This record gives sequence, C-alpha cells and structure tokens, in this order.
Amino acid sequence: MQYIKIFATGGTFDKEFNEIDGKLYFKETKLYDLLKLGRSQLNVKIETLMMIDSLKMTDVDRDYIVSKCKQEETKRIIITHGTDTMVKTAKLIARTLSDKIIILTGAMIPINFGSSDGLFNLGSALSFVQILKPGVYITMNGRYFQYDNVHKNKKMGDFEKINK
Amino acid sequence: MQYIKIFATGGTFDKEFNEIDGKLYFKETKLYDLLKLGRSQLNVKIETLMMIDSLKMTDVDRDYIVSKCKQEETKRIIITHGTDTMVKTAKLIARTLSDKIIILTGAMIPINFGSSDGLFNLGSALSFVQILKPGVYITMNGRYFQYDNVHKNKKMGDFEKINK
Amino acid sequence: MQYIKIFATGGTFDKEFNEIDGKLYFKETKLYDLLKLGRSQLNVKIETLMMIDSLKMTDVDRDYIVSKCKQEETKRIIITHGTDTMVKTAKLIARTLSDKIIILTGAMIPINFGSSDGLFNLGSALSFVQILKPGVYITMNGRYFQYDNVHKNKKMGDFEKINK
Amino acid sequence: MQYIKIFATGGTFDKEFNEIDGKLYFKETKLYDLLKLGRSQLNVKIETLMMIDSLKMTDVDRDYIVSKCKQEETKRIIITHGTDTMVKTAKLIARTLSDKIIILTGAMIPINFGSSDGLFNLGSALSFVQILKPGVYITMNGRYFQYDNVHKNKKMGDFEKINK
Repeated sequence: MQYIKIFATGGTFDKEFNEIDGKLYFKETKLYDLLKLGRSQLNVKIETLMMIDSLKMTDVDRDYIVSKCKQEETKRIIITHGTDTMVKTAKLIARTLSDKIIILTGAMIPINFGSSDGLFNLGSALSFVQILKPGVYITMNGRYFQYDNVHKNKKMGDFEKINK
Repeated sequence: MQYIKIFATGGTFDKEFNEIDGKLYFKETKLYDLLKLGRSQLNVKIETLMMIDSLKMTDVDRDYIVSKCKQEETKRIIITHGTDTMVKTAKLIARTLSDKIIILTGAMIPINFGSSDGLFNLGSALSFVQILKPGVYITMNGRYFQYDNVHKNKKMGDFEKINK
Repeated sequence: MQYIKIFATGGTFDKEFNEIDGKLYFKETKLYDLLKLGRSQLNVKIETLMMIDSLKMTDVDRDYIVSKCKQEETKRIIITHGTDTMVKTAKLIARTLSDKIIILTGAMIPINFGSSDGLFNLGSALSFVQILKPGVYITMNGRYFQYDNVHKNKKMGDFEKINK
Repeated sequence: MQYIKIFATGGTFDKEFNEIDGKLYFKETKLYDLLKLGRSQLNVKIETLMMIDSLKMTDVDRDYIVSKCKQEETKRIIITHGTDTMVKTAKLIARTLSDKIIILTGAMIPINFGSSDGLFNLGSALSFVQILKPGVYITMNGRYFQYDNVHKNKKMGDFEKINK
C-alpha cells in the first residue's frame, strides 16, 4: 500500500503547557510519540506545515494546506487540525481535490495531558484512511463524516451530522 | 448504523497490577474508560465473556466466544483478546461465521500502564469495523489482517502478513 | 500527632484544561486524588479557600488566608498556592504567625497533565510539615526555604535562596 | 548541605512490563526520570546496587547494601527497596550504622504504571533525609517510622507502627 502522509497544523492536539509563563503554546508535534505508543507498523510520513490554533488560521494558511495536499504523491492523507475550524478547511480542500482520501482529525484535550483523546483519534484516522473511498472526511469521536455533512457542536464539544 | 458489539475476553489489554501480592491479574474490563477517554459517540454495547490470559484459553472458552458472536444480532463485532492466541480464535470463528464483520484486537501493554497501545488499537478496531466487508480480521499496529494471512512475530511483538 | 491541615488556593497545581473553549480554568482541587495516589496514611484535612491564579490574588484574599491559618486549631498547615506570588503570601503570614509550621507549595505543571511535579511537591511538603520547627516555609524542587530567604527565578522556573 | 545518595535495589518501584513475554521485569532504575519530573534541585547521586525483587534478596545482597552505606562519604542516604523485606534490611543496617540518616522507601505500584505512589514517596524520603536525626527509617504512605517500630501490614499493603 502507498504510504500515508500526515500533515500537522497544530490545534489542541499539539498544545503544551509552558511552565515558565503558565500558558498554552506549541513546540513541536507529538505525532512521532503517538505512533510509537500505538506500535504503528504503517508506512507513515509526517510533515509539520504550521503549529497554530485553528481560530487563528488565515486564508493563506488554508491555501498552503490545499497546495501541499495536491502536491503530495500519495493518495492517503491525514491532517491534524484544531477542531474549531476543521470543517472550514475540509470544505476548501474538497473544492480542489477529489481523487485522494483526505481525513482531518484532532483532539479535544492536548496529547500531553493525562486524559487526551488524541491517540484514539489517530488510531481511528489511520484506519479510515486505508479503506474509505476518495473524498474529504472528518474523523472524531470514533466516527467519520463527509466534509459537507458535519458540524461541530460547540456546546457539547463533539461532531455530529447536519442531516441525521 | 447498527450498534457495535464489543466482547471482552481479557488478555494483556485488561491486566492490572495487584499491589498486595505484586502480580498481574484481572479485575474488570477497562473498555468503558477507554470509550470515555476517546469521547466515542458510537453506539457500542460491551459484554465481558471472560477475563483470562489467552495462553490459558481452552477449546470450551473458544466455542463460547463463537456462539456469542453467532447469537449477537448486530453484524459488527469487536473482540478484545490476548495477542498470543488471537489468530487461533480468529480461525475458529471464521469456520462458522461469514456474514459478519468480526475484528479481534488487543494490546501489548496493559491499559492501566502509562505507555499502553490499547487506546490506539481500540480507535483503530472501531473504525475498521464500520467499513470493512464481512469477514474475520485482526487489527493491531494500525493495520488490519485477514484471519488466514497473519501471524504474531513473537520476537518483535507485532503482527505481520504470512504472504507479504 | 495532630492532624495536618491543607488549604487549597488554586495556582498551576489545580488548573485544568477546558475542552469546550480550550482554555485553562479551575474546577476543584485535585488534593484528594493525590493523597489517594500517594496512599497517604496521614491524618489530613483539606479545605478549599479559593481557586485562583496567584497573579490575581488580592490583599483581601491574602488576609483571608492569614485569618484561616490563625484560626485553625492544628499547628501543622500546608497551603497550595500559585508560584508567582507564593513568597509574598508567605511574608504576610510570617508577620502574624510564629507558633505554627506553615508550608506553602505548588506546582510548575498542573496535576492533570502527564508531567506534573505536584505529587512530588505534596509528598515533600507533607514530610517537612511533620518535623520542621515553627516558622513559615516554601517547599519546591525537593527543598525547603525560610520565607525571608527565597525568591522565584522566573527565567528558570525554580526557587532559590537569596543568600546562598 | 552534603549531597544525598540514593541506592537503588529494585522492588516494585522499578518494575516494568515486558511486552514480549507479558511478565514483570527489571531494566534500569526510574529514579532519574522521577527527579526530573519533580524538578528536583537537590544535590543527589544515584547508584544502582542491584535490581531485584526484595523477596529474592539474600544475606549476601543485604551485606553488600550495608557495606555500601558504610563506605559512602555523605551522611544522607536513601535506599529504594521492595516493600516485602524492607524492614529486615533496615534492621540489619541499624546493627552497624548509627551516625547516618538512612531512609528506606519504595512503591506499591511500579513507577511506569499510571497510578504509582513512587513520586510521592520519593518526594517524602528526600525531604525527611534532610532533617531527621541520624538513624535508620522507613518512609511510606507519607509517614516516617523508626526501623524497630514498624511492620508491613500485608493485607492492607501499608506500613504501620508496632506500638501505636
């Protein structure tokens, strides 16, 4: 099977606690640690495109993500992304790309905190990307959603279908 | 979508450390904790069939697992199982059942230990069970294997295809 | 031995990650969890006085802490406190109280994060409070400091003696 | 202050899970990790004397520990040790040494497991060793005990005074 590409963009997934100023910040992606923890035997290549809060993601940032997805040789791509604007980025990608399997995922709790959902979501995204048909998807909460039939329920903190 | 059934049978996945005698033992499945940690929104039903080391699993135990899979109304079933004899159980199930998606998974490190792969494997199994075709599979290390084309590499502690 | 009183006031020690808005906040003290984790057999009473960032602690808050220390019947008191103004509060207490053993401690990383120093600091404070002479102290980094011979090195994130 | 010496001897404290054979074993002490986690600023030297289950500790092993304590230049010594025969070793040390502060400590749950008491006990031992008078002690459960007035309650898994 072709290799799986993971593009890291930041989001809660990769946030850390800065013990000097007591604030959350980004250092580097935790994806390598998670793949090791999961004893992954998949052929995965990781590339960090940016390390930002998705509420601060600009159009320029999104265009860059789209270009990188287009340019990548494999057809299996995962993007780790902040959950707040994950759907927005997914829609933009879907306008341009239709022949690849592109999955956006993230976490509600940072990897570095005891109770993170990141490892679960990564296991899920890596599985879906192997067998879903080409398209743009979001995988969170153990589920997969078509990019145009999902929204984040900001009160509950989970994702749900628009047309149930 | 139909509910997903998870049968817990024990294995490293659910082992705990007994602080009184310093030995590993089984108490109860950690599956509920993991689903909560993963913020799963899937319709999952959990049932513990046994809590044993898979090296101690007898033919009677395996027949019981097969019967329970047969009897369950849903067609999507996950079995958490010790890795040492996971393939043996998978083969026995495949002899009888062909119309359901049955996935066996487990862990190399107990859930309760800091560095467990259990959450990753569960996220993976719950994803594969939603979209694979009927059959009997093992999902470990981020991969899925047909029951008749996999063996555990006991030196390395991971699973690999027989015919690569 | 007389009981040990722990007053919780918040600080990094008790900060949590709010998965809805992605910010750090306070819910309730984690002291009960830590005592259980440490299998403490000490006679400890916990009382939450406030749950705030110590940079936001006002004179009114500090006066309240002093009053509560004064009023408490035992002579062994620990205060969990944000590290940024820990020394300031210690000095205020020392102006009024001289017959009790009062120890301020905290954490550089919240308890709920994987890599917290909170459990270590609590084990340390609970030990020092049993045998130090009456006075006001800060215990961090495995050390104890007299309230008037310590400052926080904000660049390094640790505490050190003023007169080494 | 003189440096603090820590002698590691094994015990539950340093046990790990072997993912190949599913058994508990010893690799190397976790003391360095714990000191880093606790952001210790103490002058500590660590030396591994053996890595064994204290039920398997022989008279030769115990004599070696006593000799090493005798020979060490500092007067502040901590010994990490399995809890089952911790009192026995403490008594042997006390027969020979009376001018040093020697503290034995350990853990009920291995450091590498999520719910270990090891970090708490280490914080406690490092604090007591700084201010107790010369003698041989056991520190567990947040408490310190004279070597000749303590026994392990094997049913409860904690330590208690013989003459309460």
